[in-house]
Amino acid sequence: MKAFSGHFREVLRSDVALLDTIMRYIVKRKGKQMRPLFVFLTARLHGGCSEKTYTAASLIELLHTATLVHDDVVDESDKRRGFFSIQALWKKKVAVLVGDYLLSKGLLTAVDAEAFDLLKLTSRAVREMSEGELLQLEKARRLDITEDVYFEIIRRKTASLIAACCACGAASAGASKDKIDAMWRFGEKTGLAFQIKDDLLDLGDGKRTGKPTGQDIREKKLTLPLIFTLQTADMATRNRLLRLVKRAPKDPDAVREVMDAVLNGPGIEYAREKMRVLRNEAVAMLNGFEDEESKRALIDMLDFTIERNR
Amino acid sequence: MKAFSGHFREVLRSDVALLDTIMRYIVKRKGKQMRPLFVFLTARLHGGCSEKTYTAASLIELLHTATLVHDDVVDESDKRRGFFSIQALWKKKVAVLVGDYLLSKGLLTAVDAEAFDLLKLTSRAVREMSEGELLQLEKARRLDITEDVYFEIIRRKTASLIAACCACGAASAGASKDKIDAMWRFGEKTGLAFQIKDDLLDLGDGKRTGKPTGQDIREKKLTLPLIFTLQTADMATRNRLLRLVKRAPKDPDAVREVMDAVLNGPGIEYAREKMRVLRNEAVAMLNGFEDEESKRALIDMLDFTIERNR
Repeated sequence: MKAFSGHFREVLRSDVALLDTIMRYIVKRKGKQMRPLFVFLTARLHGGCSEKTYTAASLIELLHTATLVHDDVVDESDKRRGFFSIQALWKKKVAVLVGDYLLSKGLLTAVDAEAFDLLKLTSRAVREMSEGELLQLEKARRLDITEDVYFEIIRRKTASLIAACCACGAASAGASKDKIDAMWRFGEKTGLAFQIKDDLLDLGDGKRTGKPTGQDIREKKLTLPLIFTLQTADMATRNRLLRLVKRAPKDPDAVREVMDAVLNGPGIEYAREKMRVLRNEAVAMLNGFEDEESKRALIDMLDFTIERNR
Repeated sequence: MKAFSGHFREVLRSDVALLDTIMRYIVKRKGKQMRPLFVFLTARLHGGCSEKTYTAASLIELLHTATLVHDDVVDESDKRRGFFSIQALWKKKVAVLVGDYLLSKGLLTAVDAEAFDLLKLTSRAVREMSEGELLQLEKARRLDITEDVYFEIIRRKTASLIAACCACGAASAGASKDKIDAMWRFGEKTGLAFQIKDDLLDLGDGKRTGKPTGQDIREKKLTLPLIFTLQTADMATRNRLLRLVKRAPKDPDAVREVMDAVLNGPGIEYAREKMRVLRNEAVAMLNGFEDEESKRALIDMLDFTIERNR
């Protein structure tokens, strides 16, 4: 990861001064770097890292950063990982363009390396991510969301990129098509578990520091704990909760009441259980492999995914 | 172009209902379709259109549409080609995501067709476009822009995509690397002339209907006629004009005065001349070719580019 940091800094260089400043800022505020880690570990699991593994990790980190920059525009948020967001420091205009730049830069990285298999895997993920976000917006408006729709949304908007990480890692090590597909599914399960953990953290479950809670409810996002709470509540409670969710964007008391209902209901334990099942299914997929060290590290990553407190 | 319209409609289909609605709206408000036309004509010039030419035209039209949707967010504009913009009808959030979706959809179109040469040409253009826009923002802030910088900006933000059209058209017809490079340069010259014409239209020169004028000055964009006017004015006039440009975003009188100064100065004729020279250089590049019909059509397109009134 240290070698990758240096590599990534080089990739982000630009001859447009404004861009170069912003890129340096982006490098500084880097996050958990889970995605490149998944790329490197799955590459090692399939025989070892190569030049192409660095290309894959850069490509994915660029795409991920692009979506974060665009997310900040979309959510009008002024903070990201405790730092100011690009759009807060510069302008919306700049943030949209920087996101586009990062997207195309990522693709060029792969195009220049003639890594067309990586391109195939990642452009599929990019399309799924925007579709997932739009599907979520469409459903949030009418609050008609079932558990199936929930999983469809998070599969697209969150799990597809982590799936691409694992598939690209394997591909960069020269794995067969079957192995690459299996790694896509491994990453997908990991990504679903990751998103459920995010849902739980937003309710304050298992959380220590960081972002404020209740954000999902304020944005009328139906998360798994809330969906299960609604599903299992009696009609009167369900209707009351749905009315509160509708008022949530403007009413802190409504947010609080919904949160309390979910925290005291069966939704939390249900979501935790789903998350653990996904984690175990992902672990089981590693059975056939021999490299104990990278298996161990991937299982650690999975456990971090579902046990992290931020 | 009729066959392409049907093809493009198919490409834009989506199984996410909200996206499908927006895509149908985008198809309806389609513009001049200059870019696909350049793809088809340059393909014919190099031997004829193929399945791959359709891929190239879809790819480029998708990327172009993506940038228009993002431009509307960036410019906060509520109208586009006389229709409401995506962000006016839906929301900024949706517009950013739809732009990302169109970008990835375009790339997927090329990836699925395994048209990696087209990907190489277009992802270079996409990066240049966002760099060009950011360079423009950086320079606009300080109003320090020379003719060289102006050409650097418009080469990136406008000419690179038209260059990619012509290069992709040639590539789709199986042209050699030299021919593809030559077509890139042909498209670049055409794109530069196109942008100068846009500058002139924004000043009301040669314009009949459509968008209101003076928009560039309101956004503190230094266009070629204005740059030349500043270059050739005496110091007092130059300082006065620069002060007016700084006030322009909020002061309609300042916009009017700058426009009058440019319209009555030497900048208009200077820009027209540069545009004609670029047009003639582009025409000269067609000399070696034999297919008179597609040559004639490309020259017609060039003349349309510099003579259009909207």
